[in-house]
Amino acid sequence: MSASVGLDRVLEPAGVLPQAAWRLDARPEIAADEVRIAVERLNLDAASYRQLATKHEGDGDAIRAEVLEIVATRGKMHNPVTGSGGMLIGVVEEVGSESPLPLKPGDRVATLVSLTLTPLRITDGLASWDGKSEQVPARGTAILFGRSVAAVLPADLAPELALAVYDVCGAPALTDRVVRDYEGEEVTVAVLGGAGKSGSLSLTAARLAGARTAAVVVNDDEAGRVRDAGLADAVAVADARDPVEVSRQVTEALGGPATITVVCVDVPGCEHGAILSTAPGGTVIFFSMATSFPAAALGAEGLAADVTMLIGNGYLPGHAEFAVDLLRRVPAVRRLFEARVAGH
Amino acid sequence: MSASVGLDRVLEPAGVLPQAAWRLDARPEIAADEVRIAVERLNLDAASYRQLATKHEGDGDAIRAEVLEIVATRGKMHNPVTGSGGMLIGVVEEVGSESPLPLKPGDRVATLVSLTLTPLRITDGLASWDGKSEQVPARGTAILFGRSVAAVLPADLAPELALAVYDVCGAPALTDRVVRDYEGEEVTVAVLGGAGKSGSLSLTAARLAGARTAAVVVNDDEAGRVRDAGLADAVAVADARDPVEVSRQVTEALGGPATITVVCVDVPGCEHGAILSTAPGGTVIFFSMATSFPAAALGAEGLAADVTMLIGNGYLPGHAEFAVDLLRRVPAVRRLFEARVAGH
Repeated sequence: MSASVGLDRVLEPAGVLPQAAWRLDARPEIAADEVRIAVERLNLDAASYRQLATKHEGDGDAIRAEVLEIVATRGKMHNPVTGSGGMLIGVVEEVGSESPLPLKPGDRVATLVSLTLTPLRITDGLASWDGKSEQVPARGTAILFGRSVAAVLPADLAPELALAVYDVCGAPALTDRVVRDYEGEEVTVAVLGGAGKSGSLSLTAARLAGARTAAVVVNDDEAGRVRDAGLADAVAVADARDPVEVSRQVTEALGGPATITVVCVDVPGCEHGAILSTAPGGTVIFFSMATSFPAAALGAEGLAADVTMLIGNGYLPGHAEFAVDLLRRVPAVRRLFEARVAGH
Repeated sequence: MSASVGLDRVLEPAGVLPQAAWRLDARPEIAADEVRIAVERLNLDAASYRQLATKHEGDGDAIRAEVLEIVATRGKMHNPVTGSGGMLIGVVEEVGSESPLPLKPGDRVATLVSLTLTPLRITDGLASWDGKSEQVPARGTAILFGRSVAAVLPADLAPELALAVYDVCGAPALTDRVVRDYEGEEVTVAVLGGAGKSGSLSLTAARLAGARTAAVVVNDDEAGRVRDAGLADAVAVADARDPVEVSRQVTEALGGPATITVVCVDVPGCEHGAILSTAPGGTVIFFSMATSFPAAALGAEGLAADVTMLIGNGYLPGHAEFAVDLLRRVPAVRRLFEARVAGH
């Protein structure tokens, strides 16, 4: 098992898995069960990019310099403040003789494991990136382990579009599963951050699974976009960090607290609003990397809230295909993603 | 709703719930739906006490001084480093005319909501506490809100014992529920930190719900205690922060990965071992306040692990009675708790 999860790539501290490691060995030479990717583009996690952009007040050169420094220091794009990474696309260069992954040289793939555990070397100084967006053109190499997950890019989607979808594809797949677990019940789903990538896909998955849905968004502009796209049965505007206001809006939009509340807002402090918005016996799914474990655990206890709280797992079998299929089935979602990738 | 969850007690920042607040108003005068408790004893959360003890290298006077400073500054015993609190026992002094809680003056109660959201004033300088244990004799006042939870202390248990049980009573109740959710399947449960308070109760709850159990403990001394008490079907020694070793031990002890892994080890870095120890389709329940949300979310993704990950909710209806009843049903567990409370 040790090689298949990348233990041989961990430089420090010894013995931890690559995600927990401070520093990885990003050498391009591969072991027998590894795969080397020629990198084309990184897609930084939204929380990570936002932290960098805020810290450097939107100065693209400074943002680029810090990304380069993180990768050079850690051997991976693992934001030390947010703890999050992102994903990448590239072309398979070499497949080890014992790799279990269904890949061959020349395949254009997206990695579906986080950049926080992917050995990464950047060789072009990110010269083609202006630092102004979470989509980062890059040259260099990345390594996949035996137990990594990568998807060959679909022919009918632009690579940037596929990457944006794959980055959040765990969210709609888990939302679908949780809605279906309440079989036979009338299910309502509130999505905090319903206008974003994971939010719009989660809304779509919930509705296709049979739930009545409400999107909670931060301003009228986002509300308009969600309404125009017909993404949710109800749309409400509230600051997700204001628990009293959020729960009031959700209760009004759905005629009561939600069976399931999905948190897709990548700012800290949304735990209590989500818990207060959820009915007894309901479920909160936390997809935001800004979620605080103690705030959620102690918040539910302090509110005497009998809700199931899930840490959003980025992996479910078939999650990438499921998410891409949502774009094919619901053109309005595809248009939202296309607009986002185009920078509108 | 605003008063019932304590919003009127929040001094800063405005608008957040008491648990998220930096500072609470701990004045002893109560509103119509509040209850005032005359404090007798605090029980600090294990992670919080450990952090303080480590920081001050076991110096009891320094630990006491910092606890006093935290309570004076924040109006609650909310450790700013660990984000955790604990619980308290005391006697009901005054019940507001509109309080929904089934309490009356003179009742000896334990609060079942965290100290991180309980307005607290200490009036004796903690003069009776030597700073050497997480059980803190104290004089002062605490406030319960309309939506708080408190339990009248049972007649057949010493107060210190009841408090120690209540402090972790969410863990066995949720473990019981999750085991029963796998109805009809043969369920195995691994508990990381099986010798501790929440661990031993979780092991006991899992077994009584029909699961085959394994305790993972940190050394031979703990292994001996768990074996002597007959708490688990198998006992293994491993460092819970070493994912490869933990998963090897669990797999060996149970004849395969666990259906359910319960994390009760109050040190950081146990997420990946728990995930690796759990079978596809299984569940990880995180009860440790040292759990990192991103480490769990990204770890499962990075390991392509299809496991459900639960944030351990400290509240389930009936959890306090359930946990106390485990002590009554299993004398060996009661003896472990008695020894722990006595400081052995």
